[in-house]
Amino acid sequence: MAGTDHRRESVEGGPAIILVEPQLGMNIGMAARAMANFGLSEMRIVAPRDGWPNIDASKAASGADWVIDGAKLYDTTAEAVADLHFVYATTARIRDMVKQVETPAEAVASIKHRLDLDQKSGILFGRERTGLTNDDIALADAILMAPVNPAFASLNLAQAVLLLGYEWFKLGPLSYGDGAPTGEALAETGLRMPGTRPATKGEVVGFFEHLERELDDSGFLRPPEKRPAMVRNIRNMFHRMAPTEQDIRTLRGVIASLVRQHLRPKPGGKP
Amino acid sequence: MAGTDHRRESVEGGPAIILVEPQLGMNIGMAARAMANFGLSEMRIVAPRDGWPNIDASKAASGADWVIDGAKLYDTTAEAVADLHFVYATTARIRDMVKQVETPAEAVASIKHRLDLDQKSGILFGRERTGLTNDDIALADAILMAPVNPAFASLNLAQAVLLLGYEWFKLGPLSYGDGAPTGEALAETGLRMPGTRPATKGEVVGFFEHLERELDDSGFLRPPEKRPAMVRNIRNMFHRMAPTEQDIRTLRGVIASLVRQHLRPKPGGKP
Repeated sequence: MAGTDHRRESVEGGPAIILVEPQLGMNIGMAARAMANFGLSEMRIVAPRDGWPNIDASKAASGADWVIDGAKLYDTTAEAVADLHFVYATTARIRDMVKQVETPAEAVASIKHRLDLDQKSGILFGRERTGLTNDDIALADAILMAPVNPAFASLNLAQAVLLLGYEWFKLGPLSYGDGAPTGEALAETGLRMPGTRPATKGEVVGFFEHLERELDDSGFLRPPEKRPAMVRNIRNMFHRMAPTEQDIRTLRGVIASLVRQHLRPKPGGKP
Repeated sequence: MAGTDHRRESVEGGPAIILVEPQLGMNIGMAARAMANFGLSEMRIVAPRDGWPNIDASKAASGADWVIDGAKLYDTTAEAVADLHFVYATTARIRDMVKQVETPAEAVASIKHRLDLDQKSGILFGRERTGLTNDDIALADAILMAPVNPAFASLNLAQAVLLLGYEWFKLGPLSYGDGAPTGEALAETGLRMPGTRPATKGEVVGFFEHLERELDDSGFLRPPEKRPAMVRNIRNMFHRMAPTEQDIRTLRGVIASLVRQHLRPKPGGKP
């Protein structure tokens, strides 16, 4: 394989693989190897427990160095998804949240479809021991769940990455950058967004923070012990809206207007 | 999971997973775990390098003990396949042999088909370092080859087992013996709504009218000639949220709270 340019084998625009607070370097390395097996190259790592770089990760990558070397580090999950348009959260069990659930095969088809529309996707993978927190999941648009034996459902981190990569690769050469244009018929279906684009996660989180600030001021997010669950619930609701960047501007305008409502003189209105 | 009889979750007649001279106990254990993830339980091991039983294998199985404990030992590959009707050999590269080549998805369909005809199948997986010998492969009817990045094709032993198991499980409840509750994970995709129900259109419109009344008061829906388009736009956004009845109550609470925000004393806040 000497002399092979591995990057050329990567699927352009493939989903970002985002490892949230991974604990073992070995698992990071094996995930990188699994990505390389299926032409994925964009790894993002949120606050790895043992720091970075990690020699165990490099060893376990078994030669997938370009994935490890190119990995980007983030302090928080929110920062790691800020530039993405659509985010999946992987989980082995159904959470008590109202959220779209997709299999790996369904998810890669959606990711490819969005890629054709110049929208970038990412997939969150949780900590080995405890998975993703509900706050991580509240940053995602949908849940990704592999069909597994319900009596023995826990997948190793790298194996979860592997299944996703495998399904992605199975989409075939269609998904390669310089390949023939495809999926055109598909591009006509699905959510139509004429004249705008999906909000990035950075824009969405900016709106969330705006709303939550105002709701803190108004006393809605009380008592304090209930605040985290209320915030997650509201974030999940607005995520399901799949807001465009124009929607985000409208929503921020709505909030600002409601908060300042009392400043307006109302002809014949309530005081 | 205490008390669950994992064997009942196994796919009856699933293919035998045959590890030929595996080197690392850890890989045997991880292969067992991958089998358990997808309802496979029949492991056969040909001349494991470090003997048997192997404590590393048991550890790495992460609870898939019934697979490890039930594994059968053989001295030679020929003995391990003697009772089988059809055998696949997994390999990462095309050998100089005239042999049918199938993907995991094709192979599991063939295996299922043969199972319906009471024919039993098995799949050979080679040594970690060197794979299967040509003599091993000569015992097989067909080659099993996962679609992988040609520039980075080597799959870890357990990962190769995982992909096969995954495809097997994806065949669905058809492949389960006793009609046990299966494919449940699959059936649970789509929008999940635990503990609540979609809002009725009456509830949704009630929320719209509430919001629009407040936005009229705050002067947001101006000028008048633009009001109809703005209202339609906002209604479309919230419709995409597919709100539950609980969501509608939350949203109405949010609006009421924002509008009354100025009535709250803010410790150290803006006037």
